[in-house]
Amino acid sequence: MAGSTFGKNFTVTTWGESHGKALGVVVDGCPAGLPLCEEDIQTYLNRRKPGSTRYATPRREDDSVQILSGVFEGKTTGTPISLLVPNTSQRSADYTEIASYYRPGHADYTFDEKYGFRDYRGGGRSSGRETIGRVASGAIAAKILKELGIEICAYTKAIGPVSIDMSRFDQDAITQTATGMPDRIASTQAEEYLSSCMAQLDSSGGIIECRITGMPAGIGEPVFDKLDARLGSAILSIGAVKAFEIGDGTAVASARGSENNDAFYTDENGVHKKTNHAGGILGGISDGDTILLRAYVKPTPSIFRQQETIGKDHENRSIQIKGRHDPVIVPRAVVVVECMTALAILDLVMENMTAKMDNLIDFYRK
Amino acid sequence: MAGSTFGKNFTVTTWGESHGKALGVVVDGCPAGLPLCEEDIQTYLNRRKPGSTRYATPRREDDSVQILSGVFEGKTTGTPISLLVPNTSQRSADYTEIASYYRPGHADYTFDEKYGFRDYRGGGRSSGRETIGRVASGAIAAKILKELGIEICAYTKAIGPVSIDMSRFDQDAITQTATGMPDRIASTQAEEYLSSCMAQLDSSGGIIECRITGMPAGIGEPVFDKLDARLGSAILSIGAVKAFEIGDGTAVASARGSENNDAFYTDENGVHKKTNHAGGILGGISDGDTILLRAYVKPTPSIFRQQETIGKDHENRSIQIKGRHDPVIVPRAVVVVECMTALAILDLVMENMTAKMDNLIDFYRK
Amino acid sequence: MAGSTFGKNFTVTTWGESHGKALGVVVDGCPAGLPLCEEDIQTYLNRRKPGSTRYATPRREDDSVQILSGVFEGKTTGTPISLLVPNTSQRSADYTEIASYYRPGHADYTFDEKYGFRDYRGGGRSSGRETIGRVASGAIAAKILKELGIEICAYTKAIGPVSIDMSRFDQDAITQTATGMPDRIASTQAEEYLSSCMAQLDSSGGIIECRITGMPAGIGEPVFDKLDARLGSAILSIGAVKAFEIGDGTAVASARGSENNDAFYTDENGVHKKTNHAGGILGGISDGDTILLRAYVKPTPSIFRQQETIGKDHENRSIQIKGRHDPVIVPRAVVVVECMTALAILDLVMENMTAKMDNLIDFYRK
Amino acid sequence: MAGSTFGKNFTVTTWGESHGKALGVVVDGCPAGLPLCEEDIQTYLNRRKPGSTRYATPRREDDSVQILSGVFEGKTTGTPISLLVPNTSQRSADYTEIASYYRPGHADYTFDEKYGFRDYRGGGRSSGRETIGRVASGAIAAKILKELGIEICAYTKAIGPVSIDMSRFDQDAITQTATGMPDRIASTQAEEYLSSCMAQLDSSGGIIECRITGMPAGIGEPVFDKLDARLGSAILSIGAVKAFEIGDGTAVASARGSENNDAFYTDENGVHKKTNHAGGILGGISDGDTILLRAYVKPTPSIFRQQETIGKDHENRSIQIKGRHDPVIVPRAVVVVECMTALAILDLVMENMTAKMDNLIDFYRK
Repeated sequence: MAGSTFGKNFTVTTWGESHGKALGVVVDGCPAGLPLCEEDIQTYLNRRKPGSTRYATPRREDDSVQILSGVFEGKTTGTPISLLVPNTSQRSADYTEIASYYRPGHADYTFDEKYGFRDYRGGGRSSGRETIGRVASGAIAAKILKELGIEICAYTKAIGPVSIDMSRFDQDAITQTATGMPDRIASTQAEEYLSSCMAQLDSSGGIIECRITGMPAGIGEPVFDKLDARLGSAILSIGAVKAFEIGDGTAVASARGSENNDAFYTDENGVHKKTNHAGGILGGISDGDTILLRAYVKPTPSIFRQQETIGKDHENRSIQIKGRHDPVIVPRAVVVVECMTALAILDLVMENMTAKMDNLIDFYRK
Repeated sequence: MAGSTFGKNFTVTTWGESHGKALGVVVDGCPAGLPLCEEDIQTYLNRRKPGSTRYATPRREDDSVQILSGVFEGKTTGTPISLLVPNTSQRSADYTEIASYYRPGHADYTFDEKYGFRDYRGGGRSSGRETIGRVASGAIAAKILKELGIEICAYTKAIGPVSIDMSRFDQDAITQTATGMPDRIASTQAEEYLSSCMAQLDSSGGIIECRITGMPAGIGEPVFDKLDARLGSAILSIGAVKAFEIGDGTAVASARGSENNDAFYTDENGVHKKTNHAGGILGGISDGDTILLRAYVKPTPSIFRQQETIGKDHENRSIQIKGRHDPVIVPRAVVVVECMTALAILDLVMENMTAKMDNLIDFYRK
Repeated sequence: MAGSTFGKNFTVTTWGESHGKALGVVVDGCPAGLPLCEEDIQTYLNRRKPGSTRYATPRREDDSVQILSGVFEGKTTGTPISLLVPNTSQRSADYTEIASYYRPGHADYTFDEKYGFRDYRGGGRSSGRETIGRVASGAIAAKILKELGIEICAYTKAIGPVSIDMSRFDQDAITQTATGMPDRIASTQAEEYLSSCMAQLDSSGGIIECRITGMPAGIGEPVFDKLDARLGSAILSIGAVKAFEIGDGTAVASARGSENNDAFYTDENGVHKKTNHAGGILGGISDGDTILLRAYVKPTPSIFRQQETIGKDHENRSIQIKGRHDPVIVPRAVVVVECMTALAILDLVMENMTAKMDNLIDFYRK
Repeated sequence: MAGSTFGKNFTVTTWGESHGKALGVVVDGCPAGLPLCEEDIQTYLNRRKPGSTRYATPRREDDSVQILSGVFEGKTTGTPISLLVPNTSQRSADYTEIASYYRPGHADYTFDEKYGFRDYRGGGRSSGRETIGRVASGAIAAKILKELGIEICAYTKAIGPVSIDMSRFDQDAITQTATGMPDRIASTQAEEYLSSCMAQLDSSGGIIECRITGMPAGIGEPVFDKLDARLGSAILSIGAVKAFEIGDGTAVASARGSENNDAFYTDENGVHKKTNHAGGILGGISDGDTILLRAYVKPTPSIFRQQETIGKDHENRSIQIKGRHDPVIVPRAVVVVECMTALAILDLVMENMTAKMDNLIDFYRK
């Protein structure tokens, strides 16, 4: 497979380019009987929609989702769910110049090397709009997980040098601030930082953190499909993500075993751990604790400064990018991280249902 | 699939437990006509073998590989290659106590929660010995890549607080030092640090870095099978890895676009980049530059100090682990990182052969 | 996966119900650089369109295909091709009665048992309209194969007791007769037979045969993905097909080895076989000869006679089906067989490109 | 994947050549907690063992299976089960001549065309011994299905012109007769027919039939993974099978709808069908009735008569095959059909456990 499909049990296949007729996704393997309407999905898509703040591109897309199949009388039928979002605001004229050179930090050059040519309009398939299919399908996965008691919450942890203070954590702020930060004070500081970046025709990187609560123990497979590996694969497949951590992440390298081990204990509510350096995963399998992951996102490569690069015929030249580009990718990618996490988790939640012989016997003999 | 298989084109399926009769791997999809003998594989297995230094467990395993199928008259036949390594040094008696409690930082608890019981001897399937199949099959992948001009080199970058100095890089040192460091001075310092950890009945984490050179541009698929995602999935599936980076990795979060973008330029040898913050991957596809990745490895969870935990019936208790355990996982995991990298790269190298219609026409019509 | 995806290299995922908003397919893995327009696909869809003769349902669908992604400036880009066919002629009112009972020979009962409920409008996902995605994507596969010199031709071999005479084979007749037969005399006889079936409120089964010419030797994988197994899987996944044959098919059971073996010989044009009982496949791999397969199709289960069955609450009752139903499935399924064959063949044609180490070396080192 | 793997949930990967060191299979996804010992598997392997009658090759193999992993204290652990059968009776000397020519009806030519060369000893990977891995893993699948109340029974239906009479059906005879027929009278006649074939240095084809009883309704996926398609794929992947039928099979082509439809009815035991032309499958999903399938097996291609063929350098020549060859493939293939059926059924039985949202809720919330 050419890699537009994710998941083995809850399988999503995305399609579409920035300036094609539409983008979309087909979900195969969604269990039957889930109440589902377009609004369930639209809520998630709205969170990645451009145009809401001055740190997001002024391009205006409705990004209205249509459910074309797989839902009947308000419930999923078990057959493939096809979701489509028309492209309504393509201004292809903006992009004709781009066809003539390779933008630094973009996939222009690598697409041409791989395929011989590319759809250069707005980045084509390598555009951020490619994430529409991820978010639309992830919204369904998140809804199913919620029914099972599993909640996923992603937010901006840092933009450039500005990090949130967890003691000020305010979940509502995630969708209310322009930055996706759950800390209004840090958000204001981050906005100031972004303004200075923009003034200097520059852009900023940042960090997205994601917590999964309500996880049962036992989710994840022991070897190549470890929960960490599947989550990592999901998150690292998002454009611009250059690092991924579980739990203490990179900090484990300088830790000692006596610091890093999480002690188990039992109280009247069951088994717990005194700490959670492991981020809720042991041996690739969930331990029942909160799962914690982080994605490190590079600065928007489209900056308005003059840059050195090569042209289509590999001649050296300098360029100045125009058009609509966010000074930071992170705020709009928060919901993408949340949705990719949902897809990875649900896939393994479904996989786990056949782990024990007793499960099969309970299902078929009772 | 229950996740013991990696890869779509060069597909490996590993099996085996620490104290079972043997461990092994089946490779399906290996191209026909590759010269291959047991020595090609044994060389790699020897690099992960225990017992070579005082920082590795004194358990002695020959870990001798046998090729059971798929090779005829010294060449691969295109049919599955079955590789087997007998377990020869099982001292199961050491592990009977472990059956009665859940070790902190280990998969004991999660396996029991998932499957209802576990093979507790030496960690069973969650043992480090599970990597034998990865290394044996990765050795074949690495040999194929070498024939295509692609070389992979992994090494220890840091142990606890001790990091290598790249100006002292000495490739021979990787396999000659006890630490896997390519810097003999840092290696000596790291050994001292490990000695102090051991004296304190403690263990240390560390960092493994890996470079892939000779990569053609165009390898990797644009969406879910981005080269970064597949490499991340491969590396994060290795036990004890808690973070993964490509290129500048976590540092991109605090970088600006003007710093992070790599400028393209052309000289008489072709297209290059002035810097390589991207780690050789743009939009999930190799750009022809060196690929650089890092794995962050947690400290060995088996430490000899007294630890708090729970017993099999979830009762609170304290334990003291005995047996044979390395004070650091990193040195023996270097070759595992190298081999998982080879598996991920080769799989996408094969995938890429059908990217263009011209490729099919060249193959079938000429 | 829930089985709406076919193929590993040229991967198609179909979606859509008879009376939903649309039906469609996503093709992932189509090589870049293939000239492709909607007309290429429409030509195939027109061959399965209802309404062309009195043996096909009078329901009128335009079945106009739209290419939504993956094609830029008239050529495939290597990214997913999304094809959509709107449903324009749904008369849901016709089908409300069907909700109340289980039609014999249909999937009504099994869908309800599996999913708890079903989209009962026109058969929902089990409708013959489900094949639209197969045909649309198969048209692309067939176009690629044609570029490689491989041609696929399916036709009606028999309807009820009426079989074609191969000595009268006339390829043009396949698309010109109402039956899909390449023999105008047999076609007329078959039409008479169908008229008598209709007069008796009954329906007829039939046989579709398919020939693949221009096949290179070496296509197919030796064990589970034998060319016969993949073709069988493709054809048996078409609704109403109850038997599948390669070459001499069922006749081999009563043959002797001396009759069934095909003798190889060489002449100035290369290697040939004196006979082709094997149908062009030996050991699961193409031998360079014409591949010959047959699909046996059951009679349309929707007949207008009174039938015994059960209602939704499992009460015994009798029913009389109304609406629009062909008296035979075969003529419209001819193009479906052709397209599924194309999908299976192309997938293995692509798979075969990595069979030899020399192939990789030629591709990457030259 | 190169096609040595079957199944998505209960996944088996076979390996090994006729004259290599061993053959085997890795089973991934076997639920934990199934009691399993080598005897469970050996029983099935003994049924395909050569040497039991004069219609089977005198080659003597113990074919003793070893469980190398995945079983602990007599129960499956949920991790991969590696099964190995050593080759003990290789007489490679017999086969050296074969290297110089291409046997009619064999895969010699196609392997050479695909891979450039082949392991010619005893047919290598295309030998009937390749089925050892299928039978060993199928034995486990059959044991699981039995626990769920699903029983699979295959038997020889015909050899050449001799067919069984179902009114004399005697299940014990299947393993007691030399032919695998459940009818002792027909078996004696078939033996006579085979003796005459042998006297004429010839071989015979035949038919294997298989019944699956105790099937719950709802197994199978609606489109490409229809139960018929998966069963067909499983059976057609067995060497020498040239046709596959479900239920009435090829006979549906000449049937009318009024004859072919199976009427549903309800009695005090639930829902039934008055007839079973459909062979227990409607719309690709089991309907709760007995599943009935048939495989048509070609005559052994290795016959002792002089045959025309080509040599390694494509020169025309005639050959006379020596060595050990059964005059009919069918009797030893009966257990292979049974085991491949078990693998296909179990895979879909597991897949079905996530078909409904209620299933997930029952599993995770109760």
